[in-house]
Amino acid sequence: MERVFNFSAGPAVIAQSVLEKAQSELVCYRDKGMSVMEMSHRTPMFEEILAETVALFRELMGVPEGYDVLFLQGGATQQFSAVPLNLMATGKADYVDSGNFAHLAAEEARRYGTVNIVASSKEDNYTHVPDVEKIAWNADADYAHITTNNTIYGTRYVKLPSTGDVPLVADMSSNILSEPYDVSRFGVIYAGAQKNIGPAGLCVVVLRSDLLGKASPLCPKLLNWAQQQKNDSMLNTPNTFGIYMAKLGFEWLRDRGGVAAIYKQNVAKAALLYDFLDESRLFRATAQMEYRSLMNVTFVTGDKALDDEFVRFAAAHGLVNLKGHRNVGGMRASIYNAMPVEGVQKLVDVMKAFEAGRP
Amino acid sequence: MERVFNFSAGPAVIAQSVLEKAQSELVCYRDKGMSVMEMSHRTPMFEEILAETVALFRELMGVPEGYDVLFLQGGATQQFSAVPLNLMATGKADYVDSGNFAHLAAEEARRYGTVNIVASSKEDNYTHVPDVEKIAWNADADYAHITTNNTIYGTRYVKLPSTGDVPLVADMSSNILSEPYDVSRFGVIYAGAQKNIGPAGLCVVVLRSDLLGKASPLCPKLLNWAQQQKNDSMLNTPNTFGIYMAKLGFEWLRDRGGVAAIYKQNVAKAALLYDFLDESRLFRATAQMEYRSLMNVTFVTGDKALDDEFVRFAAAHGLVNLKGHRNVGGMRASIYNAMPVEGVQKLVDVMKAFEAGRP
Repeated sequence: MERVFNFSAGPAVIAQSVLEKAQSELVCYRDKGMSVMEMSHRTPMFEEILAETVALFRELMGVPEGYDVLFLQGGATQQFSAVPLNLMATGKADYVDSGNFAHLAAEEARRYGTVNIVASSKEDNYTHVPDVEKIAWNADADYAHITTNNTIYGTRYVKLPSTGDVPLVADMSSNILSEPYDVSRFGVIYAGAQKNIGPAGLCVVVLRSDLLGKASPLCPKLLNWAQQQKNDSMLNTPNTFGIYMAKLGFEWLRDRGGVAAIYKQNVAKAALLYDFLDESRLFRATAQMEYRSLMNVTFVTGDKALDDEFVRFAAAHGLVNLKGHRNVGGMRASIYNAMPVEGVQKLVDVMKAFEAGRP
Repeated sequence: MERVFNFSAGPAVIAQSVLEKAQSELVCYRDKGMSVMEMSHRTPMFEEILAETVALFRELMGVPEGYDVLFLQGGATQQFSAVPLNLMATGKADYVDSGNFAHLAAEEARRYGTVNIVASSKEDNYTHVPDVEKIAWNADADYAHITTNNTIYGTRYVKLPSTGDVPLVADMSSNILSEPYDVSRFGVIYAGAQKNIGPAGLCVVVLRSDLLGKASPLCPKLLNWAQQQKNDSMLNTPNTFGIYMAKLGFEWLRDRGGVAAIYKQNVAKAALLYDFLDESRLFRATAQMEYRSLMNVTFVTGDKALDDEFVRFAAAHGLVNLKGHRNVGGMRASIYNAMPVEGVQKLVDVMKAFEAGRP
């Protein structure tokens, strides 16, 4: 079976060489006589895998001293709860509503305190993110929350907000490791793994160490960052195979030059697609130009039936999962780190062919 | 590399044919042109895998009408929090303290209400489980919690308690699907996957439907059973690959005759080991005979240095992870469903050889 080009928003494409490496050692890992899936998490063979995964991530992301890195279960949605449970010491937080997941994060935080939506792009159908320079942040908030890339609407922050002494918390699920970030600007960064890291069932959490130890007594044990930090992400059995897959993905990224190099490629991949969309007479991009995501490219024909026809046409050419999210309609091409340039080029070619076939 | 016999308590041995099946379709699943890890959880190809996993589990476990089955993240420890957050409507629950995880479950529940330890075998070093017929359950408890098999101490309940109208909640992490259970005796059953189901990062939860809808408003969204039930375990992206591995494991179990057949084999495997231990002049089992686990066989020589020597001797013969938990010392052979009889026989042979080598 030939592999397709998979434009899914998540779980998403994984580099073929990463899958092949995992395949080669799935039954027996190196000289261990067992699969990674069968390893006790309390043995040196797994502890080494975990330590390497953390070290590679720190290197790729440029995580400075004074920050801890955890690999937890539950995906970003679990962190929607963990963030307020660990940080809402005085019971209030600022959230920016820039899309579906930003909204869900804020809704979950309301369970535990007062949430101030300091800016929203909802009335513009989330076709952009709010202008960070116009946001009036609350100086007494426990933290300020943003979503750096909006998977469903295909937008991203091109500038980070300055929130003064209030820790900036970011959900980076859909663009982590795709472009350089200065981690020291953030109090907390979290990201579900299933877009730019590896398989679903894992979440990376980067924590500025001074923010630990403020958890609510009602915070479930596994969601307590300080306890997880004290136990090196192993307060209970972690998602061991997911961590191993993340390690293989990080090695792949390192071998390709790391974040700086993949960022250049991501810019080029996105440009290939947006340039075509801007010239097309049939398709158009839906996100405002200034805020266009490098990871999720949303576009429409303007005709629902034609959109559906294109999705089928593309699938017949081995380009799958191009249907847009139901909130937006149209199409979405998720072109994460692991999507090769060839996949994007083929998508452009197929769009051209589709367009050429209509009067 | 030859595979070892892996006696790890969890993550634990997985049947080789299951691993080989996963290996064969790791890069391309059937005719889908992608790995299971790359499938969007919102596509028919994954929804089919999830539905088959649930159906197989229901069939193997004999889950009757009126019960829901969820596959969640976080392992059993997450359920230590979820149980009180979903069930402690009036703020009190009964727990039996039969070992380490039973104790941890009770400790976590204390965060959310009053926990009554209605029986404990702690003063006997957990070498047995409390006699269920002598327990005075509280008729006004929101639920009563037991741990059907105690992984660390190698004991199990041979009889289930009768708790009247109070729902019985059971952590079955280390013996689920290893022996027949009448699910209708329980209100809730939960089990981490990494012992008898598949890789770590997954937890199965069986819920009597009338117990849904009582969650605390402070229950994090992902821990809310009713919300997960309404969303078929996909309130957010589930551990898709873990679910797929569970499905392969369930197919393997079904093809071997299901729980009734594996139970017979488990009894025979355990007898092989216990019979030797009872005759040995060097080794002895630590759990009281009546309560001996079929899954985790704990034993000692009585001499710590000799224990360590045996663990090394066994490892040199390809029998690994036999070191007992630090709370108990000595040795522990975890002989879950996927441990072949040959592995247990080889362990007995190696113990005999070790014993023969001493005066």
